[in-house]
Amino acid sequence: MTAKLKTAVLGATGYSGLELTRILVRHPRVEKPVLLKRSENHGSATDLAEVFPALSGNGGYPLQALSWPEVKRQGVELLFLATPHEVSRALVPEAIAQGLRVIDLSGAWRLKNEEHRAIYGFEDADVATADELTQRAVYGLPELNGDRVANAALVANPGCYATSVILALAPLLKAGVVDRSRGIISDSKSGVSGAGKEPTAKTHFVSVADNLSAYSVFNHRHVGEIVEQLGLEAHELTFTPHLLPIPRGILSTIYVQLNRSIPTAELESLFGNFYAGKRWVRLFQTPKLPQVQFSLNTNYCDLGFCLAEDGRRLVVISCIDNLLKGAAGQAVQNMNLMYGWAEDEGLE
Amino acid sequence: MTAKLKTAVLGATGYSGLELTRILVRHPRVEKPVLLKRSENHGSATDLAEVFPALSGNGGYPLQALSWPEVKRQGVELLFLATPHEVSRALVPEAIAQGLRVIDLSGAWRLKNEEHRAIYGFEDADVATADELTQRAVYGLPELNGDRVANAALVANPGCYATSVILALAPLLKAGVVDRSRGIISDSKSGVSGAGKEPTAKTHFVSVADNLSAYSVFNHRHVGEIVEQLGLEAHELTFTPHLLPIPRGILSTIYVQLNRSIPTAELESLFGNFYAGKRWVRLFQTPKLPQVQFSLNTNYCDLGFCLAEDGRRLVVISCIDNLLKGAAGQAVQNMNLMYGWAEDEGLE
Amino acid sequence: MTAKLKTAVLGATGYSGLELTRILVRHPRVEKPVLLKRSENHGSATDLAEVFPALSGNGGYPLQALSWPEVKRQGVELLFLATPHEVSRALVPEAIAQGLRVIDLSGAWRLKNEEHRAIYGFEDADVATADELTQRAVYGLPELNGDRVANAALVANPGCYATSVILALAPLLKAGVVDRSRGIISDSKSGVSGAGKEPTAKTHFVSVADNLSAYSVFNHRHVGEIVEQLGLEAHELTFTPHLLPIPRGILSTIYVQLNRSIPTAELESLFGNFYAGKRWVRLFQTPKLPQVQFSLNTNYCDLGFCLAEDGRRLVVISCIDNLLKGAAGQAVQNMNLMYGWAEDEGLE
Amino acid sequence: MTAKLKTAVLGATGYSGLELTRILVRHPRVEKPVLLKRSENHGSATDLAEVFPALSGNGGYPLQALSWPEVKRQGVELLFLATPHEVSRALVPEAIAQGLRVIDLSGAWRLKNEEHRAIYGFEDADVATADELTQRAVYGLPELNGDRVANAALVANPGCYATSVILALAPLLKAGVVDRSRGIISDSKSGVSGAGKEPTAKTHFVSVADNLSAYSVFNHRHVGEIVEQLGLEAHELTFTPHLLPIPRGILSTIYVQLNRSIPTAELESLFGNFYAGKRWVRLFQTPKLPQVQFSLNTNYCDLGFCLAEDGRRLVVISCIDNLLKGAAGQAVQNMNLMYGWAEDEGLE
Repeated sequence: MTAKLKTAVLGATGYSGLELTRILVRHPRVEKPVLLKRSENHGSATDLAEVFPALSGNGGYPLQALSWPEVKRQGVELLFLATPHEVSRALVPEAIAQGLRVIDLSGAWRLKNEEHRAIYGFEDADVATADELTQRAVYGLPELNGDRVANAALVANPGCYATSVILALAPLLKAGVVDRSRGIISDSKSGVSGAGKEPTAKTHFVSVADNLSAYSVFNHRHVGEIVEQLGLEAHELTFTPHLLPIPRGILSTIYVQLNRSIPTAELESLFGNFYAGKRWVRLFQTPKLPQVQFSLNTNYCDLGFCLAEDGRRLVVISCIDNLLKGAAGQAVQNMNLMYGWAEDEGLE
Repeated sequence: MTAKLKTAVLGATGYSGLELTRILVRHPRVEKPVLLKRSENHGSATDLAEVFPALSGNGGYPLQALSWPEVKRQGVELLFLATPHEVSRALVPEAIAQGLRVIDLSGAWRLKNEEHRAIYGFEDADVATADELTQRAVYGLPELNGDRVANAALVANPGCYATSVILALAPLLKAGVVDRSRGIISDSKSGVSGAGKEPTAKTHFVSVADNLSAYSVFNHRHVGEIVEQLGLEAHELTFTPHLLPIPRGILSTIYVQLNRSIPTAELESLFGNFYAGKRWVRLFQTPKLPQVQFSLNTNYCDLGFCLAEDGRRLVVISCIDNLLKGAAGQAVQNMNLMYGWAEDEGLE
Repeated sequence: MTAKLKTAVLGATGYSGLELTRILVRHPRVEKPVLLKRSENHGSATDLAEVFPALSGNGGYPLQALSWPEVKRQGVELLFLATPHEVSRALVPEAIAQGLRVIDLSGAWRLKNEEHRAIYGFEDADVATADELTQRAVYGLPELNGDRVANAALVANPGCYATSVILALAPLLKAGVVDRSRGIISDSKSGVSGAGKEPTAKTHFVSVADNLSAYSVFNHRHVGEIVEQLGLEAHELTFTPHLLPIPRGILSTIYVQLNRSIPTAELESLFGNFYAGKRWVRLFQTPKLPQVQFSLNTNYCDLGFCLAEDGRRLVVISCIDNLLKGAAGQAVQNMNLMYGWAEDEGLE
Repeated sequence: MTAKLKTAVLGATGYSGLELTRILVRHPRVEKPVLLKRSENHGSATDLAEVFPALSGNGGYPLQALSWPEVKRQGVELLFLATPHEVSRALVPEAIAQGLRVIDLSGAWRLKNEEHRAIYGFEDADVATADELTQRAVYGLPELNGDRVANAALVANPGCYATSVILALAPLLKAGVVDRSRGIISDSKSGVSGAGKEPTAKTHFVSVADNLSAYSVFNHRHVGEIVEQLGLEAHELTFTPHLLPIPRGILSTIYVQLNRSIPTAELESLFGNFYAGKRWVRLFQTPKLPQVQFSLNTNYCDLGFCLAEDGRRLVVISCIDNLLKGAAGQAVQNMNLMYGWAEDEGLE
């Protein structure tokens, strides 16, 4: 048996980092990951089980302060970053310089287009290196970019909303059946873990429970990656995120107009052909539709649709677990591709 | 002081009926309502507090079997029906024949158009009378049809989803600023009380909690009333309801394309003028948006919007409490109009 | 008609303060309250509707910085404090010195016993005045101390948990039927609004949803007031609070052993006699039991019990809305007593 | 490698049955289970994924009608029953007669004491056989009865509440440190899946959300198994179950009085020694306490405690996932013991 891969996770104390740690610990091809913390953060916790008692009793998840020499000494080859955007933007050049391969779960390296990137307000210390890495980074949506992921040094793991929207629309846009002139709408709803672990007025239980709210209308960071990956003009997509009173899960209700009347069966074939052999996309047959619960705690993106009698107005429903297919699960799926393993290794 | 109005409620054991009872009991112009039950139902309960212990300790809410002579003997002038569609369809002709004025909370009398009505599958015993009443019934959306409600013998109280959608769109359509050729979309989300009190697999706690699901896509009963009231063609509206893991509340996210670029301030004026003097519509000023929590336990319809930079793509957010402005509260608002009282009497 | 009472609320931006404001605005004997904010807090908001958009559209709730001369100039007679404990401890002496009557919703003035008070760690600037006020303060549980509340200058409004526990136990202890040597247990569960509006890791939606946790076991601040009011020794009461995944509501499950076998009917009489004429206590007849939902959005304390076959082991269930009977509602009930009004004025 | 075990599951369409199926499908020592349905039930579904769409896309979970000859022909050795009590009571004698080993998740075979069993109201067709099986059945709590489980033909898998209570109390009672004369109390709270999948008024989302309620006080079926396993008299235990507004998870808050003052460290040793080497019990060190979330989706029983200053009043907190350690997970743990495998095989 070949030696197992040595990985490290920076940011395991966040929700995505926790899920990533859980998956990696059970992954048959990977050693127990090195868990890194930034020196300035989470100073007192020395084990991840102190932060997440759900992990206790499994032999310990020691946290060590980030130090590149130490990371190299431990033989780490692949680094996962589950850190805030600006932290990833600053640290990835360092990690790449150390010869590490990197899967970054933040938005730091997803966007090629400078205008799209402006929303993040990055201030790169070394602009040339940052520009170069920006161009080299591969957008890690395996169903679309699997080949390039396989050879990437830096994988920019997609945003959760973006994953749900891109996978729903890619087959239709590639087939050229969408009347783009009439606009595409994604009305998306996410559980609260998507807003991160930081306690804020917005994430207070009393603010979220028994509630639903729209936010960042016409102004969400994920619009950039969606239009870049789908080759759309920004004005062709209207994206409205909502905050659901549930811990996790995303459902996107996506509205497109087809440029000709298409029978349901033809659309099913279109989706079926596009995702043939893709392990982590499940297609629901009309009239069945995905629900948030169905994909929870899995790496699936569930897709289903309803077509109006006119054969033109189409509603696509796309569901993912935002912490898995929308973050940690997809990161591991990308790792599997980068090392030539089966796409579902460690993810079942 | 003038004598108080005598009212009766049939169907108080449902969610809307309970809210209606609560409002009427406190309404300064109305006597404590007579609570009627159909003989075949809820046989054992003799007091509404047995069904809803939250009502206990307030002097009793006796339930009496429906009997027209008894209802007349008690001097009832106005009857509220919070009954299933087919029950309302059968009973309203009887009530009208007794000389009662009726506010019906079901879908039985909302639709003039026979094709729209087909979805309910009514089988009228006396077709001529049913047809005549169908034409006489006034769609009880006070902000649009207040004058006709005032003189109505039969008010068809609007559906909950329909209320949220019509109030959001009416100002825009009346002003003629919507590019109807591009389609109008309402992505609507409702709490579970909207699905009624009947225990089903769909309303089981475990099915709803931690979940979100779309249902009845392109096939919901409220589409008919929305398009009738707004003067739309059915194909111009795409309406997608979703079931939220909350007990009550509706948020509709409505997408329209304007036929010219319009400044935000002009849209605010347009809404403001349309709803000037309307007590139960609240307009949120950009960038503030309504949330489900804000209108809970009130009779308000909260409206707000976001306009894309192009001044054409418009997202309107509309929130109501489905049991109040979407049902019982609106019914009382209609009663207030029918008897010439202030629109907020009993509803504050 | 007599002039209406002028009141002020300091701390309206918290959950209890909001409820208090809502009640006072509708109270027939009271003018619209003056809403005060401490200068250092909530600096930007000039109207309470900015903090709670649910209040918008009702004519405005202006917030003014606290200034005693201004408060006096406005003719305020009664001040409600919905402020943190230490703020109330500092401000009440000032308010009393101004000749105001005060209802304080915090724990600052509830405890006569210095040992019990130690848990708050107060550091009084003027110890003599604080001591004197501590002794003068009346514990504002109307069902027990109504007479003294009527004449009080300073009412210490009870804690939410304490209200639910004291009202359940007072009839039994007064009747001398409890075997105190075997210990009394209150296993209490509260919604999240009881933990306040401050965003913390503990109140984050993801921490609370799909969860239940015990906290402050043997160490909760409300134990002192419970044992003081009931005349118990601290070791006779075991009190365990839990955090429920709901916004509001308390259910206490209370276990006592009776010192003789007592029939259910006798216990019902005992409770019935004790609470005869008490408007805001509802007794549920065996085998019916209160549930959190039944008292939500009311000022009721709901009580019910189950007795073992041996007639000795007794389980009492006590439910309140922590923001109403457990805070703002009870404060208004106290106000009603202080001004000789009916106990349910403004609270129905 | 040895051949894998052939198992069957009857009742896979319930919540426990679903979890059981999920675990068995991934268990390395077991073949994909045969899924049986009773002929009269679930007639139309031919695959479990039709009932639980979350299972779709994994190759199919065919449901076949129960037929003993067919079960034998397929080489099934071990049968899991996740059926209602009365169904298990009727079918287990048949299965045993077929030479199958059986793990029954219902309450049918847990109780030796006839008085305790009376609450189920069984009407055995063949009383002698039923009596004999009742005596042979092993109560499948592996931490207490592991040796006897290993050789059992019929394992009665414990109730969910019972598991949480027995594991919390067993170490204390065995050590003889409990003052039983003062009574033992378990205030237990469970998620809604514990009430089963049948839609009822009690499990309707609107009845459960924003609520908490006690039920079956002094009258719950699990009391019998708790007192039998712990060697208590029925009157020594007061057990109060509550319905939590969460899908799954149990937290029991257990109150005992010790018969002498014991230091915290000694109690920790007592628990630690009792559960030494027990893979599926996690002990939380004071002052840390288990929470429902920590054991969700695991087979752990989490235990922690708080001791009063007097060293005598003890509060033990016990948490499990009611569908795993409280049902399906424990069933698989029992299977592992029955076949000599590691206790955590398939359960990690």
